Amino acid sequence: MRTRAAVALAPGKPLTVMEVNLADPKEGEVLVEIKATGICHTDEFTLSGADPEGLFPAILGHEGAGVVIAVGPGVKSLKVGDHVIPLYTPECRECPSCLSQKTNLCTAIRSTQGQGLLPDGTTRFSMLDGTPIHHYMGCSTFANHTVVPEIALAKVRDDAPFDKICYIGCGVTTGIGAVLNTAKVEIGAKAVVFGLGGIGLNVIQGLKMAGADMIIGVDLNNDKKEWGERFGMTHFVNPTEIEGSIVQHIVNLTKTPFDQIGGADYSFDCTGNVKVMRDALECTHRGWGVSVVIGVAPAGAEIQTRPFQLVTGRVWKGTAFGGARGRTDVPKIVDWYMDGKIEIDPMITHILSLDDINKGFDLMHEGKSIRSVVVY
Amino acid sequence: MRTRAAVALAPGKPLTVMEVNLADPKEGEVLVEIKATGICHTDEFTLSGADPEGLFPAILGHEGAGVVIAVGPGVKSLKVGDHVIPLYTPECRECPSCLSQKTNLCTAIRSTQGQGLLPDGTTRFSMLDGTPIHHYMGCSTFANHTVVPEIALAKVRDDAPFDKICYIGCGVTTGIGAVLNTAKVEIGAKAVVFGLGGIGLNVIQGLKMAGADMIIGVDLNNDKKEWGERFGMTHFVNPTEIEGSIVQHIVNLTKTPFDQIGGADYSFDCTGNVKVMRDALECTHRGWGVSVVIGVAPAGAEIQTRPFQLVTGRVWKGTAFGGARGRTDVPKIVDWYMDGKIEIDPMITHILSLDDINKGFDLMHEGKSIRSVVVY
Ligand SMILES: [Zn+2]
Ligand SMILES: [Zn+2]
Ligand SMILES: [Zn+2]
Ligand SMILES: [Zn+2]
Repeated sequence: MRTRAAVALAPGKPLTVMEVNLADPKEGEVLVEIKATGICHTDEFTLSGADPEGLFPAILGHEGAGVVIAVGPGVKSLKVGDHVIPLYTPECRECPSCLSQKTNLCTAIRSTQGQGLLPDGTTRFSMLDGTPIHHYMGCSTFANHTVVPEIALAKVRDDAPFDKICYIGCGVTTGIGAVLNTAKVEIGAKAVVFGLGGIGLNVIQGLKMAGADMIIGVDLNNDKKEWGERFGMTHFVNPTEIEGSIVQHIVNLTKTPFDQIGGADYSFDCTGNVKVMRDALECTHRGWGVSVVIGVAPAGAEIQTRPFQLVTGRVWKGTAFGGARGRTDVPKIVDWYMDGKIEIDPMITHILSLDDINKGFDLMHEGKSIRSVVVY
Repeated sequence: MRTRAAVALAPGKPLTVMEVNLADPKEGEVLVEIKATGICHTDEFTLSGADPEGLFPAILGHEGAGVVIAVGPGVKSLKVGDHVIPLYTPECRECPSCLSQKTNLCTAIRSTQGQGLLPDGTTRFSMLDGTPIHHYMGCSTFANHTVVPEIALAKVRDDAPFDKICYIGCGVTTGIGAVLNTAKVEIGAKAVVFGLGGIGLNVIQGLKMAGADMIIGVDLNNDKKEWGERFGMTHFVNPTEIEGSIVQHIVNLTKTPFDQIGGADYSFDCTGNVKVMRDALECTHRGWGVSVVIGVAPAGAEIQTRPFQLVTGRVWKGTAFGGARGRTDVPKIVDWYMDGKIEIDPMITHILSLDDINKGFDLMHEGKSIRSVVVY
């Protein structure tokens, strides 16, 4: 079949909207009509050429929601008409990673996915002249139709709006999951969130769900204060407007009459800046502080600290897709949204058509959007 | 009273054995006759002058065992004749750290201890001319008698030999505790131990207790192979005798027919070398590997890695005194020793008199001892 897609032809160039060929789903694969897709910083990271593993031409996009149109041979868990969210972190439930029950990082199709291919080592997308087009993160939601492995699709309820729940395919789950699955924040905790973009705001609403007492947001942009408060932030800090270091500031802010040591119980880096990651670790509490890296750092960048920070009880960890097992957890998060336990609507600041997809990247660069969503 | 002590008069000089004054225990303090003390790398670190927080003159030593000779006013949990192990990490059970139940790093007397003083801000030791002598890590076990806060003494059974259980005051608890308290290693795990000195050997016997399947020891000295095997090591690697990187070597060694990703479930750095700490993190398994820093790094040294290591599921943490709450856990470890659940005797390679204490440091430098113990 043919479908319309925004194709990344080369790094550093805008996407080109065009007709492309899409082959039928093979064994274990599913054809999905994408109804909506978010535009994420990770798409931008790859499109810009900064991603050393970026491949071109490719159909980017990894934050979609849609409907099953056809299933390939052997597909058992999905049928035509099912509403689905594609998962860049699949959940096969039978690889060593899934069976470890210690990680969500399913490795069943990792190597082909990293090469922009489906599990059989080929692509379903091609140019009209036959040139293969790479898949992206196993999703390629910047196409009106895409083919995705069954193990990389979360079946969700039929009454959830595509243009909101598509965001659960990345930012919402990453932010909330970092709090609930990775950090396992407990009621009454004090937490700091560095970077109040989409991920940071979702971390904040995760912290609110978890019952954190103190939710400190840190951002260089004062406009983010209102955004953070909208989702549950209790304190805002602009590091350029304080005396002394941000670490000492957070430590002081979290002191109590009883606890004069101070420090956050949990911190989250949503900036991708390795210096901020260090601050995020070092502002946590001696003895038990846990710092979670969420942001993606530039290629080659390294985090650094004195080992004394760890020896005195701080823990440095990271999260990918919020530690969520996609097929198991994403449908639950859709339910939370539908039940009003979490909010997504205010974060979807712009709705665009596929033809206007490059505007979504412009809005991101200009810091004008939290999330732009393309509706097909 | 007067007692005999080995005094560190200046950095980089041997200890001087001499008579010193020891004042009576004050409120909440206990006078202990030290019966035996180990000589540890941490004493050497301070004596050498490398410790930026080192104070002189001081009575070093933090790995002792002895008998209560007198108690100051208000002491309730100890009486004359009790056998005790001094604790450089106290356990007050009422500070914010103790009450958090998340850390063993009691902060009740941290600031004075760091200044070489008892909690009231003074020393009990002085030269015969009256010059005050600093306490060390709240213990000062290189003296035949010492004064220690009640909260920094673990009461242990009367039938345990001082010249063995003194080692539980540091290396044994640190190594075994890192496995049981900090990493919480589970049955069947694969683990790597970097550095097979005293701490490393105790990590190994902790791993054996925990039921680890694969216990890989890494050391530059092939003589350590026999030592490691003595305590339960299943594989030995000398990084200078392999092809390629130690990280890739460990990853390959831990692969199975089912799990072709490979990597250790747990790793422990017992070297204090920040490059080794990085290898220890990076050789752990994608998705769930936990690396524990135990070794003390040189002043100013920093650990470094790509944040991708954390984002893909590895956890970097550290441990001090093996995460053990001294008054609660040390008596249990003494019981384990007396019940034959752990071994200490083979690690005590040399017994010295106080007059020969500097020989203990020489044996350490020459790599000839696992542990030298001074018996008073
Ligand atoms: Zn994304
Ligand atoms: Zn899997
Ligand atoms: Zn020691
Ligand atoms: Zn305490």
